[in-house]
Amino acid sequence: MPRYRLTIEYDGTAFVGWQRQENGPSVQAAIEEAIFRFSSEISTVTGAGRTDAGVHAMAQVAHFDLAKDFAPEKVRDALNHFLRPHPIAVVHAATAPADFHARFSAVKRHYFYRILTRRAPPVLDRNRVWHVVHHLDAEVMHHAAQVLAGRHDFTTFRSSECQAKTPLKTLDEIAVRRAGDEIHIEVAARSFLHNQVRSMVGSLKLVGEGKWLARDLKAALDAKDRTACGPVAPPEGLYLAGVDY
Amino acid sequence: MPRYRLTIEYDGTAFVGWQRQENGPSVQAAIEEAIFRFSSEISTVTGAGRTDAGVHAMAQVAHFDLAKDFAPEKVRDALNHFLRPHPIAVVHAATAPADFHARFSAVKRHYFYRILTRRAPPVLDRNRVWHVVHHLDAEVMHHAAQVLAGRHDFTTFRSSECQAKTPLKTLDEIAVRRAGDEIHIEVAARSFLHNQVRSMVGSLKLVGEGKWLARDLKAALDAKDRTACGPVAPPEGLYLAGVDY
Repeated sequence: MPRYRLTIEYDGTAFVGWQRQENGPSVQAAIEEAIFRFSSEISTVTGAGRTDAGVHAMAQVAHFDLAKDFAPEKVRDALNHFLRPHPIAVVHAATAPADFHARFSAVKRHYFYRILTRRAPPVLDRNRVWHVVHHLDAEVMHHAAQVLAGRHDFTTFRSSECQAKTPLKTLDEIAVRRAGDEIHIEVAARSFLHNQVRSMVGSLKLVGEGKWLARDLKAALDAKDRTACGPVAPPEGLYLAGVDY
Repeated sequence: MPRYRLTIEYDGTAFVGWQRQENGPSVQAAIEEAIFRFSSEISTVTGAGRTDAGVHAMAQVAHFDLAKDFAPEKVRDALNHFLRPHPIAVVHAATAPADFHARFSAVKRHYFYRILTRRAPPVLDRNRVWHVVHHLDAEVMHHAAQVLAGRHDFTTFRSSECQAKTPLKTLDEIAVRRAGDEIHIEVAARSFLHNQVRSMVGSLKLVGEGKWLARDLKAALDAKDRTACGPVAPPEGLYLAGVDY
C-alpha cells in the first residue's frame, strides 16, 4: 500500500480551514474528493498544519495511502485536474516510506505573515495581506519580537480553544522586516499552539505602532494570561510557508 | 481649476482595459464614476498607459481636473471609498501643475511580466501570472533579449491594431531573471507600441524553451513583419509597474 507525500498550495479564503468540518468546505475534503475521483479509492489525507479559515498555504505537506501504485507525477497531475474548480494545487508529489507522517514526522514548521501598511486598500493582494492603514516600525518590531524566541509558556498567545497538552513551545526563529509598503514576519518552530502566530503578530503590531514598548510584549508573555494578548491578527495575512522533516 | 495626479493599482482581470469602451467595464470609467460620486463633477481621467483587458497595474499614473479644490489626501481616501466594490485603489494622490499630462509628460514607462514555470496551476497567483508548464532558461532569455534593446523598427512586435504613427521605438531596458519558479521580465521605454511587451515576451518564451535561438529572435526583429512574431503572451502576466516624469 503506497504512501504519497504532497506539497500543496492553496488560497484559504473560501475554506473553513484545512481540516474537514461539518460547517463548510475544507481543503482536506476537496483533496480527498479529488483522490476519489482519480483513483476510486477512499483515502484520508493528513496535513502537517491544520490551518484555520482564511489562512493560506504556499507549501502545506500532507500524506495519504492508496491500494494501487501510481507514478507520483501521475498523482500530481490527476489531482490537479480534479482540483481545478478549487483554489488548491499540488505543487509536488512523491512516494514516501510507510512510516512517514506529515504531522508527526515534521521537525519544523515555517509560517509567513504579510501586513500591508498604507492608506489604500489592497487590490492585487486582496485577501492576501492584513491591511493596516498606518506606518509600522519593522525594526522596532523585530527587536521586540526576539523576546518571544526560545522556549516559553505561550499561554498568552494561545487560543482558548487550543487543544495542545502543554503551552510550552520553543520558537526557533522570529524575524520582522520591511519590504516596500509591506511588513513580513517569518516564524519557525517544531510546532505552534492554536492561533499562536496570529496572536504574536497582533501584539507585534501594537509594538510597531508605538502603543506597546518591547517591555510590554515581554510583560504580556510573562503574564501567561490570554487576556494580556493584543487583538489577534486576521487570517488573510498568514501563510503556511513550509515544513521540514 | 486644480489638476490632480493619481497613482493607481488595479487588477485588470474583470475589465475591458484601462480605456472607456462601449463593450464592458473599464478602469477609467470606474474612476470617473467615483470622482463624480465624491465631487458631483464630471471629469475625464487620462492615464499614462492604456492597458489592455486583463493587464494589471501596480502604479498606473493618471490626471484629472476638478473645479473645486480638495486636499489630495481627501481625494485619495474619497476615491478609494467609492471605488471599494472594484479591484482598483488610489495608492497616491497629489496636486499637479496645469501643464502636467499623465500621458504626454511621461518620459519612461516600466512594465513587468511574470511567468510561472511549473506543472501545477497557479493558485495564490491565479490571473496574476502566465502559466507555462515546463522549464524556461532565464539566462538564455536574458542574453537573447538584449538584441531588442535600443532603437529599432518594432513592426514584428506590434499588434495589427496599433495606431502609432511609426513602428520606431527605443527600448531602454529589458531584463529577464529567474525568481524561484517564476521568470520575471522588466522592460522600460519612453513608450511602447500596442501589444509590444506581450509580443516580445511571447517570442522570448520560445527562446527560453529552446525552440528559438538568440539569432532567431534577431531574425524576427529584422524581418519587420508581424507574422515573424511568436505567439503573443497572455495579458494576465503583465503589469504596468511605473511611469517616470
